[in-house]
Amino acid sequence: MIEHPRIANGWFRELSDDHFPGQALMLKVEEVLHHSKSEFQDILLFKSAEYGNVLVLDGIIQCTERDEFAYQEMISHVPLYSHKNPKKILVIGGGDGGVIREVVKHSCVESVTLVEIDRTVIELSEKYLPKMSSAFNHPKVDVKLCDGFKFLKETAGLNSVEKYDVIITDSSDPDGPAEAFFQKEYFQLIFNALKKDGIMIAQASENIWLDLNYLKNLMKTSRSIFKNTQYCYTMVPTYTSGQLGLIVCSKDETIDITVPQRKPDIKEQGLLRYYNPDIHSASFVLPTWANTIINVE
Amino acid sequence: MIEHPRIANGWFRELSDDHFPGQALMLKVEEVLHHSKSEFQDILLFKSAEYGNVLVLDGIIQCTERDEFAYQEMISHVPLYSHKNPKKILVIGGGDGGVIREVVKHSCVESVTLVEIDRTVIELSEKYLPKMSSAFNHPKVDVKLCDGFKFLKETAGLNSVEKYDVIITDSSDPDGPAEAFFQKEYFQLIFNALKKDGIMIAQASENIWLDLNYLKNLMKTSRSIFKNTQYCYTMVPTYTSGQLGLIVCSKDETIDITVPQRKPDIKEQGLLRYYNPDIHSASFVLPTWANTIINVE
Repeated sequence: MIEHPRIANGWFRELSDDHFPGQALMLKVEEVLHHSKSEFQDILLFKSAEYGNVLVLDGIIQCTERDEFAYQEMISHVPLYSHKNPKKILVIGGGDGGVIREVVKHSCVESVTLVEIDRTVIELSEKYLPKMSSAFNHPKVDVKLCDGFKFLKETAGLNSVEKYDVIITDSSDPDGPAEAFFQKEYFQLIFNALKKDGIMIAQASENIWLDLNYLKNLMKTSRSIFKNTQYCYTMVPTYTSGQLGLIVCSKDETIDITVPQRKPDIKEQGLLRYYNPDIHSASFVLPTWANTIINVE
Repeated sequence: MIEHPRIANGWFRELSDDHFPGQALMLKVEEVLHHSKSEFQDILLFKSAEYGNVLVLDGIIQCTERDEFAYQEMISHVPLYSHKNPKKILVIGGGDGGVIREVVKHSCVESVTLVEIDRTVIELSEKYLPKMSSAFNHPKVDVKLCDGFKFLKETAGLNSVEKYDVIITDSSDPDGPAEAFFQKEYFQLIFNALKKDGIMIAQASENIWLDLNYLKNLMKTSRSIFKNTQYCYTMVPTYTSGQLGLIVCSKDETIDITVPQRKPDIKEQGLLRYYNPDIHSASFVLPTWANTIINVE
């Protein structure tokens, strides 16, 4: 059996959140499928008893076959349905392929560029997560193997003609290669790379039950670039505390991103398992104490 | 140090859900405060590293000092604000005192009867969970030490004058002494004990990520008595998958329980940390796949 420091007695135990070390999730392991260290990170894939195949980067669960749609659908469809007519989409990270699979469900989308730093993640997803990685060869999809921060700086800069309608940052947490994605300079690069009615979304790496102060500061960082910054969440049972925060921003301050600007057409609706227009708006509604810290103070 | 079969190497590991044994939550233990077997159940109290004191019954986390308000507020205020003028309230279970603490925040409430089977839970909560058990001596509160099922059958029956505006079932899961609270006969007893505009709520013991089929059947059982049965949820990080389902029913079929009938007054509002009118409605909004199974099929 392939060994991994987080697996013992047939159970995987997630590395606790640095900001919140007193809790941990365990998943029962049926078979370890792969373990290696790529140029960028520690990569583990295992078959779990209840959640299908699981992808783990640097000790943190990234996705499982059973619940991945809750994350992929919300990080894709909240910004895409907040835009009236999104045609040109940029995805930073997302090497498992789940986000681009969701993006190409929109018939209005004309092109999707995926920028992933780690080729190994794409290759392993194609092997072990076939339902997530199904869109890599889609005719509208273009894959760039490079650092997302550098890509934005060099290719999609202030004077570039490469401007996007929606930019989705589907990164891992800030402790690994994704650290730069949580800094002010990155929000500025995204701002510059968006069209004037563009929308961006990024995973917040925390939720209201973990480090709320970190989240508050991240929102402040975002608001220093995008005045129209909102927080929503998606419920994913294999993420710490069962939920993950998402930061959604609109370059145009007059757009209310908590309300969908379009509804799924019949064809799109048939392809969606989690997202619907009601949950779009409900996902921005927070308990009073968290709302006060994130949005009022 | 006091021993408990679920604690090893300084970590508490929750007994996995019978319906879903492949995942488990762990909490770091600072000190075991109490372990005993009462007449009814195994009772553990420990001080955790991040969640304050934790109450565990039969191996399942019931509440922690850090996140208990998410459960107590939603199971109390969703039914109470769904009622225009609730005066007479019955709480079945809830021996930790958290629900009655919330109920007496409503100035319109005139009396609260708490029916708890296990005296030990009340005594231990008064000792180790002082912020939850603060309302036991409130002048509007009456505590009955008996089985809730029997109480309803004998005291609050069909021809009794003891009818309630709101009945809250704050029980443990159906595998222990609370088993009867998940049966059709119990829903009928509650129906009989409610006034004609009465509202009831009960914890569903599952959520949409666990045994959705069990939840669907529980909803069917409830709908065979209360045609107006709805599902909502609250987000509690120390419950499995980070959320818990609640079944809410109105005896009057014309009332829309997904919309508050009253809003918190200024005094009440200052006492609430989780509940607000927006989250009341948002908590009934489900992802498409779960909504289809619970509410459409």
